[in-house]
Amino acid sequence: MKRIEVALVPQLYSLSHPREPFIVVLIDILRATTSVCAALHNGVRAIIPVATLEEARVYKERGFMVAAEREGIKPDFADMGNSAFNFMTPQVVGREIVYSTTNGTQAFELVKNEADIALGAFVNLSALAEWLMSIDKHVLMLCSGWKGHFNLEDTVFAGALADKLLASGRFEIKSDASHAAIDLWSLARNDLMGYLAKAEHRERLRRLGLDDVLEFTFTIDACPVVPLGRKGIIKRAEDFE
Amino acid sequence: MKRIEVALVPQLYSLSHPREPFIVVLIDILRATTSVCAALHNGVRAIIPVATLEEARVYKERGFMVAAEREGIKPDFADMGNSAFNFMTPQVVGREIVYSTTNGTQAFELVKNEADIALGAFVNLSALAEWLMSIDKHVLMLCSGWKGHFNLEDTVFAGALADKLLASGRFEIKSDASHAAIDLWSLARNDLMGYLAKAEHRERLRRLGLDDVLEFTFTIDACPVVPLGRKGIIKRAEDFE
Repeated sequence: MKRIEVALVPQLYSLSHPREPFIVVLIDILRATTSVCAALHNGVRAIIPVATLEEARVYKERGFMVAAEREGIKPDFADMGNSAFNFMTPQVVGREIVYSTTNGTQAFELVKNEADIALGAFVNLSALAEWLMSIDKHVLMLCSGWKGHFNLEDTVFAGALADKLLASGRFEIKSDASHAAIDLWSLARNDLMGYLAKAEHRERLRRLGLDDVLEFTFTIDACPVVPLGRKGIIKRAEDFE
Repeated sequence: MKRIEVALVPQLYSLSHPREPFIVVLIDILRATTSVCAALHNGVRAIIPVATLEEARVYKERGFMVAAEREGIKPDFADMGNSAFNFMTPQVVGREIVYSTTNGTQAFELVKNEADIALGAFVNLSALAEWLMSIDKHVLMLCSGWKGHFNLEDTVFAGALADKLLASGRFEIKSDASHAAIDLWSLARNDLMGYLAKAEHRERLRRLGLDDVLEFTFTIDACPVVPLGRKGIIKRAEDFE
């Protein structure tokens, strides 16, 4: 039986490791992992996550396309912010894009020394679940949260993914964090947008005028793709083979 | 409006502070806060929490009664373990008891420099809620968890208490952790024992043969008392006045 573990916030990541071999599923629904799914599904060739804006600027000077965001705001030097819609234009097809966000790429830094990191979002739920069923690894889901705080949208997604994996009969859960995530998903699943209306970060995006992408964000299976991070670069899983 | 915050694990405590003035509600359902409620309700005069077994042993040598537990097991030198039933005998009435447990008193250490610390458990839910309504402070609930892991029973209790406080119309919640706790309570409230049957720590106690006290633990309002920690000693709130 393969084990599912859930780290509800990055601070719990190192405590939550199942036994080897395991794969990390990085979750940052608003907005990094949703945007990366949109990008790769739209034909972006690769995403290069960087932790700091300084690194992003160096890449920009070397001619890379840069997507970046801090506190929801795009820095001047960046080509685009981190709305999923920015990654769905004809201009990005076939490109490598350097990407730095408040939470998502910070969480990526935390796990970048793991062998493989899959990225999860509602938009790739089923594709990711099927891929995880097909490999022989335990699954450790890492919710990015918001500046170290627990958030509902990442947790509810972890519950959705755990629920799908359990249904395959090939996975088991033991931890209370996994139970809680699944139970919150059970409350949210019939009206995901409605349930997550109370989420703090959704309200934060609304105040910043960045909530245009919410309906897309909560459209399950809109982007059937499995983004995989390996040695600092994120590509479709099949493009590593 | 008074604010409710919930720290789902001790690692989130320092991030979760509301503005001043606030009171900490320490939660360790299995078993420290439940046992302290039982003790003070049964006539124990005071509880002196200590972080280490070495400190507990020094108190023992000075003639104090000592309750202690590590990994569910009572150390040889202690007079008793940390089952609530140990604190409900005639022998303990009127006594000061030194107390050290795996999680509860560790969490107490984390917050001991706060002015006042109230202790919460299902057995004192309504008494604690009414007392919190009567004072002019924001509320920060600290779930002890288990060795740094999230646990269901502490979180569900935080939800129960938050739900009661919100119903008074004098409190508000803003954080996703508070919403999650209340939502888990909404799933658990009609069959608390049944819902928490899946909790990891309950299973751990069962394996150790320490689950005799579970029915008492989940009996809401069995001990209508408000334990308050101030300057390193826990007494009934009214005994500080």
